[in-house]
Amino acid sequence: MKDPAKVVNDVLSSLLSVLGEKPAALHEPCFAGNEWSYIKECLDSNFVSSVGNFVNRFENDLAAYTGARYAVAVVNGTAALHVALNLAKVQAQDEVLLPALTFVATANAVSYCGAVPHFVDSEFGTLGIDVPRLRDYLTTITELHDGVCVNKQTGRVIRALLPMHTFGHLGDIDGLLALANDFKLALIEDAAEALGSTYCGRHAGTFGQSGTLSFNGNKTITTGGGGAILTNDPELASKAKHITTTAKLPHAWEYRHDQIAYNYRMPNLNAALGCAQLEQLDGFLASKRALHKAYAQAFEDVSGVELFVEPPGGKSNYWLQALVLQPKWASSRDVILAATNSLGLMTRPVWTLMQDMPHFACCPRMELSGALALSERIINIPSSAGLLREAL
Amino acid sequence: MKDPAKVVNDVLSSLLSVLGEKPAALHEPCFAGNEWSYIKECLDSNFVSSVGNFVNRFENDLAAYTGARYAVAVVNGTAALHVALNLAKVQAQDEVLLPALTFVATANAVSYCGAVPHFVDSEFGTLGIDVPRLRDYLTTITELHDGVCVNKQTGRVIRALLPMHTFGHLGDIDGLLALANDFKLALIEDAAEALGSTYCGRHAGTFGQSGTLSFNGNKTITTGGGGAILTNDPELASKAKHITTTAKLPHAWEYRHDQIAYNYRMPNLNAALGCAQLEQLDGFLASKRALHKAYAQAFEDVSGVELFVEPPGGKSNYWLQALVLQPKWASSRDVILAATNSLGLMTRPVWTLMQDMPHFACCPRMELSGALALSERIINIPSSAGLLREAL
Repeated sequence: MKDPAKVVNDVLSSLLSVLGEKPAALHEPCFAGNEWSYIKECLDSNFVSSVGNFVNRFENDLAAYTGARYAVAVVNGTAALHVALNLAKVQAQDEVLLPALTFVATANAVSYCGAVPHFVDSEFGTLGIDVPRLRDYLTTITELHDGVCVNKQTGRVIRALLPMHTFGHLGDIDGLLALANDFKLALIEDAAEALGSTYCGRHAGTFGQSGTLSFNGNKTITTGGGGAILTNDPELASKAKHITTTAKLPHAWEYRHDQIAYNYRMPNLNAALGCAQLEQLDGFLASKRALHKAYAQAFEDVSGVELFVEPPGGKSNYWLQALVLQPKWASSRDVILAATNSLGLMTRPVWTLMQDMPHFACCPRMELSGALALSERIINIPSSAGLLREAL
Repeated sequence: MKDPAKVVNDVLSSLLSVLGEKPAALHEPCFAGNEWSYIKECLDSNFVSSVGNFVNRFENDLAAYTGARYAVAVVNGTAALHVALNLAKVQAQDEVLLPALTFVATANAVSYCGAVPHFVDSEFGTLGIDVPRLRDYLTTITELHDGVCVNKQTGRVIRALLPMHTFGHLGDIDGLLALANDFKLALIEDAAEALGSTYCGRHAGTFGQSGTLSFNGNKTITTGGGGAILTNDPELASKAKHITTTAKLPHAWEYRHDQIAYNYRMPNLNAALGCAQLEQLDGFLASKRALHKAYAQAFEDVSGVELFVEPPGGKSNYWLQALVLQPKWASSRDVILAATNSLGLMTRPVWTLMQDMPHFACCPRMELSGALALSERIINIPSSAGLLREAL
């Protein structure tokens, strides 16, 4: 059997062979296009806030890029999720199904609606929801009442299914669509990590009722802080715009609003950055794919650890590159994290599972052995588009 | 008696005498300082998002400027209100007292907590809460139970008092503090409009448990979108920082969070703009005061309408200049609005009162004759700091 110290050394030397000796962030942005001139144009126009040409342009550019009929730009991915749940009429005391293996925003957004996150398992093939096991679980614990899915154990309505495309990889989309259809759930894709990822040629976030994107600083493109809701439904798009702009009714001077709503509109300043970033997205994706190839080569002969490869049928943006340790080396995870981070090579494990946080400890859940195993064995490694810039 | 058409003409010609024939926005920003170089520095540093030097600097600059011990920068003024209510432990089914005469964000933020806005009246001297009438009202409808203020009519706890400093004018601060103390209410100042305003030399937003600011594009300074929470309490400041950054626990690589929280942190890009704007605030305030003086002169001899003047004891930022029509000319308000806007001179009435919107129609309220009279008689006129730039 391999020496644990050898696994650590192998991972380190493979990383160094790709990245060189200089420090590397986990994911940092790259500003090499029109960022500068668009922001200057924005300042010169005096429109930096919730009204302005760049917000509309960014929304149009996003729709064109993703193929969604509509995109609505908001302050961040969390706000986008909150709005998407609102569009699906998720209300207090409803339940929403989402992976235990996700960033906390997915579950927080459900809480903002007064609804209850219901955690489901993930699997190794896609890092996404384990659809066959979820189907068995729902068959056991739910029944349809007048076309509404009711959790027999809690008595609550399960309103929506909210998969998250982990590290940009699209999960079992066909399985999720069938599940949503059979159990009468609104399908909302948390595509925060998946801008540029497709499945069967179709962009992430366009399969369900709506999808959400994030443009946080650590994402494939950034607007400083930002997010968007994608949908093909004109009524939902119009509602999304309305409730993200305080539900103000159009009028030359009156300030009248017709429902409780949010100040979630993306500022024009941030959209200007977004327009410039989006122009470079294809280049970023090519760089990230090249980085994946370099890692694949470097880790080819390292036993005990595998570089995660996009699932069949999809094309991933490879937002975060991930190593998956073999079970017997899971206990070396923290040693590898410590060794790499101490050298300035930023690495991290996946997020703490949702049910392991105090505020979600009492939420309903299915058996989560897949998510647990993944959380013990995943290590994310430096993934910025700019890392191999010189090499391209 | 004066001819209604004469009032309209007098207002128009007075406005034109100050503003000239060119169009004038109600309030637009002025970028004449280091905006450009700070944003360039921000892009060059690659830190545009939720981490970065400008966010910390903007918070320090705000604290220094306002005299608050702590400032926490967030995505907008609405988020700041939501957080401030959270700090005051406002919870579902509590009531919060706030003026019916305010922008909808004040009431929306209360709803985000699941709490119920309770609308109170405003008065002509300060455009703020009518403190003596509110005291009488609370004496009648509330009683203290174990140091908690209970609304005898609804059975709900009244947790907080949330005055809003209309157009930047500080209301009866001493009266509000006494009221909060006597009725055991947390005092939160919605100072969204009041950056640069003081009362007895002390800055708006620093009198109660916490105060909130807004840096929306139409405010005295702007960050594109942005806001801040001010407080003198170290524990509240630390909690504000924690819940605006997803309640993540500090760790080199772990993602663990300990409560339901928000993605409300101001991006570094927006803070860079804010740092440059704050450097110019004193100049903006001087320009706005000069504009007030020019309007005062122009409207001095116009009968039927008065230019609102800062209440005694305070120094206002004169965020929005306001005309108050005499009661008999209230019916001319919309004619004046139409005539001025059609000339490109942007004017507007005050916001639709909160209880007149469908989603707040059933909220508890005191008798609101002051707010109603104000809403019929106020007209805001062009107020940008840049309007008299040539003249200074």
